[in-house]
Amino acid sequence: MRSFAGRDILSLKDFERNEFFHLFEIADRLEPIARSRRSSDLLAGKILVTAFYQPSTRTRLAHETAMHRLGGQVNGFADAKVTRAGDFYQESIKDTVHMLEFYGDVIVMRHFLQGAPHEAAKWSSIPVINGGDGWGEHPTQILTDLYTVTKEMGSVDGKTFLAIGDHRMRTMHSLGYALSQFDAEMVILSPEAMSPRPEHLAELDAKGTRYRIVEHVDEAIADADVIYMEPVVQPDYTHSRDEKPSEYPTTPANYKVTQEVMKRAKSTSIVLHSLPRMDELTTDVDGLKHARYWEEAYNGVVMRMALLSSVLGAWE
Amino acid sequence: MRSFAGRDILSLKDFERNEFFHLFEIADRLEPIARSRRSSDLLAGKILVTAFYQPSTRTRLAHETAMHRLGGQVNGFADAKVTRAGDFYQESIKDTVHMLEFYGDVIVMRHFLQGAPHEAAKWSSIPVINGGDGWGEHPTQILTDLYTVTKEMGSVDGKTFLAIGDHRMRTMHSLGYALSQFDAEMVILSPEAMSPRPEHLAELDAKGTRYRIVEHVDEAIADADVIYMEPVVQPDYTHSRDEKPSEYPTTPANYKVTQEVMKRAKSTSIVLHSLPRMDELTTDVDGLKHARYWEEAYNGVVMRMALLSSVLGAWE
Amino acid sequence: MRSFAGRDILSLKDFERNEFFHLFEIADRLEPIARSRRSSDLLAGKILVTAFYQPSTRTRLAHETAMHRLGGQVNGFADAKVTRAGDFYQESIKDTVHMLEFYGDVIVMRHFLQGAPHEAAKWSSIPVINGGDGWGEHPTQILTDLYTVTKEMGSVDGKTFLAIGDHRMRTMHSLGYALSQFDAEMVILSPEAMSPRPEHLAELDAKGTRYRIVEHVDEAIADADVIYMEPVVQPDYTHSRDEKPSEYPTTPANYKVTQEVMKRAKSTSIVLHSLPRMDELTTDVDGLKHARYWEEAYNGVVMRMALLSSVLGAWE
Repeated sequence: MRSFAGRDILSLKDFERNEFFHLFEIADRLEPIARSRRSSDLLAGKILVTAFYQPSTRTRLAHETAMHRLGGQVNGFADAKVTRAGDFYQESIKDTVHMLEFYGDVIVMRHFLQGAPHEAAKWSSIPVINGGDGWGEHPTQILTDLYTVTKEMGSVDGKTFLAIGDHRMRTMHSLGYALSQFDAEMVILSPEAMSPRPEHLAELDAKGTRYRIVEHVDEAIADADVIYMEPVVQPDYTHSRDEKPSEYPTTPANYKVTQEVMKRAKSTSIVLHSLPRMDELTTDVDGLKHARYWEEAYNGVVMRMALLSSVLGAWE
Repeated sequence: MRSFAGRDILSLKDFERNEFFHLFEIADRLEPIARSRRSSDLLAGKILVTAFYQPSTRTRLAHETAMHRLGGQVNGFADAKVTRAGDFYQESIKDTVHMLEFYGDVIVMRHFLQGAPHEAAKWSSIPVINGGDGWGEHPTQILTDLYTVTKEMGSVDGKTFLAIGDHRMRTMHSLGYALSQFDAEMVILSPEAMSPRPEHLAELDAKGTRYRIVEHVDEAIADADVIYMEPVVQPDYTHSRDEKPSEYPTTPANYKVTQEVMKRAKSTSIVLHSLPRMDELTTDVDGLKHARYWEEAYNGVVMRMALLSSVLGAWE
Repeated sequence: MRSFAGRDILSLKDFERNEFFHLFEIADRLEPIARSRRSSDLLAGKILVTAFYQPSTRTRLAHETAMHRLGGQVNGFADAKVTRAGDFYQESIKDTVHMLEFYGDVIVMRHFLQGAPHEAAKWSSIPVINGGDGWGEHPTQILTDLYTVTKEMGSVDGKTFLAIGDHRMRTMHSLGYALSQFDAEMVILSPEAMSPRPEHLAELDAKGTRYRIVEHVDEAIADADVIYMEPVVQPDYTHSRDEKPSEYPTTPANYKVTQEVMKRAKSTSIVLHSLPRMDELTTDVDGLKHARYWEEAYNGVVMRMALLSSVLGAWE
């Protein structure tokens, strides 16, 4: 297995089966620190640089919390508008990285352009973690999610994932690549405009990911072990605070998971959602035994502790 | 007395007399750390989560400074626009809290909606501090202010508070509730549109807060021990940087405190203002012996040290 | 030499030769910490307050990194819009400082108004560092740059600086004042609208800075030891993300430094640019032996370590 020390985490395309297991094991080792809200000095004296060109709460704060729990510090920006990098200069990634690399020991970058973290990694003397890049990938989210499946169900192997949401977006891309390393099936459900691009399906074919496409949640709910969700309907306007929620577009029934739908699900199945959600996952599911999205949120911190400590070489 | 460990600080409605004194005593014990700009490890390994959906300087930074002075760390957001929680998803408080609770050990939340921190506390496994909620309350500000009165004048008991400002807003609400636990009188002065709502006065009656309403600062200045101020005229537009201050609306004379007005005040009286100010408190008061608003700002850090260490159980 | 402990860093107008050398020496002493990405406890328990009323990446983050590398903490704001200080109250600097001074041990302030940090220093009980004030000065940038020249070329003495950019702006002002303390010449190149104001030239005359004004890079490139650059053409609009770079205004050839122009430069000359850049410094210069702007960015952290530890009295 390739060492994680000094390594960029840009994509799950090239992640190997034993690398997933290695990170899951490190996460298990660090989990008691997060659970008991203790702190450690594993990363004392280390600095995480956050470079967020797009808004984020969970991805940014989970990385920051992981760093703080392990004794490290955080520099950076949560909003490109407060940086010169985001203003009219449209500074090149190269120029920006030849600044950020002096501000810490590892960079986590979210960018509206696909490939921006890869470009950053080309120039950076410190590891770069992809915190979500445009239409590209979101590797740390999927590592979190597969770790959650492993903890909650024992293993990713043998599981059927019903993946509902935008299959042209980064999270679903990373999921498809990752599942190629497991004995798992991906059942794809999305509106036409969010269905996987042919090039992406060709990639999945080449990697050997097993998948099939369905059109209604009822076709797949009975077989699903993991119901993996993202928003299906996304308003493309900026709402005002006075706007009534009733004016929001609503998710068609065939993409929606409700308490009623979950009656037809396997009794052992779990529901994951990286959140925030619209109405595709109704709150009446929150009280069901299937709901695991809060655990997923918690594991977001644990997996980032594993990732940051690994790329910073704390285990070598 | 109820223990402060693990307790939410949402309102002063239910605060008891000895609970105020307990916090004042803890504040006295921690004050030398703030005064000498030393640091402590009382909260080493603890993390404060700041969740500010409305702008704030003093409330947010006083909490952050308190945490840093006591050896802790800070995560969070100062601006809802950089979070997904503040964007078009309008994520529910429940969903947001089931993320934030994993990012630290205590949450301080400011929200434009009254009751948002209470809703957060309902779901959170860690204590929630109300940093100001809509038209609701602002408990940590009033704790700071009554601590200031105690330090500067020996006691809150026996004092007459002339409260000038918006009595439909959160700070005045918390003041009214708090004074019910002391032998003190509240003299209310505000324009019609900022006068207390009948329901609020009914609450004060029920709690036993002594109050009377006046219409001109001259009616009350001679009897006041504490002149407690907030802006009276608030422009409801967003100004541009080029706008001349002379174009701002001005505060009518009957709500204004000036050097001239202070000539008619008790020689022992003090002036408090949580700041920022408009022209209701003129800068020619700054040099008078009565001015205590800078001390109030300083005590803002000290009281947050007391609050954070108490709810985090550092004294048990 | 005046002690740096407790001192404000507002201007280079009054900086003396041996004070530059003193800071360069402290920087040399601290540089191994930055180079090896270690941390120190030199400033443990100290807090830096960042007060940025204008966007900044490099200045803000270099100060923050310096503080973290030396074991300190950081409070503050990166954007005036998230503070009450920046909203319609237009709080006075005096009022703001009588809050910020309680939040830490040293303040670094960037402000759109010239003189704002000087006004802050008048009221503050803790040192104030000017992080760039309107049309005023940018002392920490020029300290970084002259330290870079010293490290890369042995000395500032005997060097000719070709200064291309906006000579009505703060960075060029600080450069002109600083060079009066060295045996150096400043060759000024800028479009008419960016040429030095007569008052500024009078100041340079009074201080004894040697300068001359040229109109084309070719007049001066052969004699220059340090090519000191800033953007020459600055779009005065806020671009949208979809705008093509080709629509940006372009820098006229007589102010531009390219690989072709550098062929006529001294073989020992170096190019500095505080970045971000537009097209006045083309990327084909990046690979040349002359390019030292990445080293300059790195030294930005080192010099801020020297400054912060000095004003905080860590060396006394």
